[in-house]
Amino acid sequence: MIQTLTIVGVGLIGGSIGLAAKRRGLAGHVVGVGRQRPSLDEALAVGAVDEVSLDLAEAATRSDLMVFCTPVDRIVEQVLSVAERCRPGTLLTDAGSTKAAIVQGIEGKLPKDVHLVGSHPLAGSEKKGPRFADPELFENRLTAVTPTPSTDPAAVKRTVTFWKSLGSRVKIMSPDDHDRALALTSHLPHLVASALAGMMPDDLRELCATGFRDTTRVAAGDPSIWTGIFQQNREALVIALTAFGSRLEFFLRALEKNDRTVLDALLAQAKRNRDALGS
Amino acid sequence: MIQTLTIVGVGLIGGSIGLAAKRRGLAGHVVGVGRQRPSLDEALAVGAVDEVSLDLAEAATRSDLMVFCTPVDRIVEQVLSVAERCRPGTLLTDAGSTKAAIVQGIEGKLPKDVHLVGSHPLAGSEKKGPRFADPELFENRLTAVTPTPSTDPAAVKRTVTFWKSLGSRVKIMSPDDHDRALALTSHLPHLVASALAGMMPDDLRELCATGFRDTTRVAAGDPSIWTGIFQQNREALVIALTAFGSRLEFFLRALEKNDRTVLDALLAQAKRNRDALGS
Repeated sequence: MIQTLTIVGVGLIGGSIGLAAKRRGLAGHVVGVGRQRPSLDEALAVGAVDEVSLDLAEAATRSDLMVFCTPVDRIVEQVLSVAERCRPGTLLTDAGSTKAAIVQGIEGKLPKDVHLVGSHPLAGSEKKGPRFADPELFENRLTAVTPTPSTDPAAVKRTVTFWKSLGSRVKIMSPDDHDRALALTSHLPHLVASALAGMMPDDLRELCATGFRDTTRVAAGDPSIWTGIFQQNREALVIALTAFGSRLEFFLRALEKNDRTVLDALLAQAKRNRDALGS
Repeated sequence: MIQTLTIVGVGLIGGSIGLAAKRRGLAGHVVGVGRQRPSLDEALAVGAVDEVSLDLAEAATRSDLMVFCTPVDRIVEQVLSVAERCRPGTLLTDAGSTKAAIVQGIEGKLPKDVHLVGSHPLAGSEKKGPRFADPELFENRLTAVTPTPSTDPAAVKRTVTFWKSLGSRVKIMSPDDHDRALALTSHLPHLVASALAGMMPDDLRELCATGFRDTTRVAAGDPSIWTGIFQQNREALVIALTAFGSRLEFFLRALEKNDRTVLDALLAQAKRNRDALGS
């Protein structure tokens, strides 16, 4: 049981954390912190938080657990700006889609007895805002928790318990392993979907059916959030993109040679992998 | 009103045509032709057809309208194999995802008073078989109808009426325009989704969330069907893939330079295009 849970950034993810924590009786009091009144009011209206505040530093002084659900390129600065205000024992975590830049940017800079453990719940969608918050968003999803050798073990344990209490499964990974993996499973697909959507001429829109819609759905995500993710994980993303380019070359050569066997093999391997994922 | 409608290939598309035609009272009698008993029996069981047959040539002798819903690389051969058996006035059309190879392969080779008009209903999914057939599949979807200068105008009119009667909107295009457009809106997305799915190592599967699933969903499609589509439209697909490669290069260069402005612009353009499509 958490006395005061503070959620910084009450969008789809932050709002869902609030709803899930309240529905499961996980927190005595949930504070939503943000920079924009309308979005805070919306979070209050959907019942995701008990109280809203524009004052991050003040909220920090009375929090037991703070979850930063802000864009990845703001988290380090926000955490460091409030760390000195936190009471001993305060646990800080986040929901950012990159981990190495965040964890490395904060590690070693926190007061004694204030701990950060990086997290990334693999949930969400291209939708934005607390009105899309869902108390079951984390149910049966996976959350990556990314300690380093110098992370406090008790803080890791509390973080794992937190996400499990919201309904999530948890996988412990290093920040670097996380970023390399997510470059392939999330950041590259986002880039590819955006490249496809971006090159479509307006006059072909009516000829875009379900397949195009599915393949490009994530490209509707917020550009500024995704630019931040791409920048923070650009080394791993460049490697993933280069590997993807090589794979496209296989397709291109097979098309140029009209090689049915190779095309069949490439598509069959893709189908096996995709079928293994389920719908 | 069609006396006898024959559907060659009663999978998802063929089965849906049968269900839609029967529900809308469009055909007196619907015959499903195929090569495999189990799939024909399934089409009969779901009510997509009134009668099933393994004998394409015999079915042709008593059809007023035949719709070929078989893989694109079988349609030309099947149409030519039965054309001489058709009665004068028989209309032949198809539901293939490519048009130029099919229309060019048949045009000028049909008996007088037997007409082919190419069609492509932009409907369907990665699912396969008549058990996924849906009488509303064509509702509010678009069907491309692809006459050439030598196509009989009355046959075009009948074809347009047929698809509209099934609930579809219709767009008239040349076979080449269709193939160039679909290379971008359908065949390239399929290739890209397959490249992404195909390169994913098994041990990262648990880290593939909604974004990856959406982006790669079409890769679960039948490889042999898609190999045929890729081969029949390979010229336009090579051009589309090359353009896509150039767009990926923009992303790569922006990542290498850590250029926030360019990344933002690329993602913002993608979002605009994707938002314009709707969900």
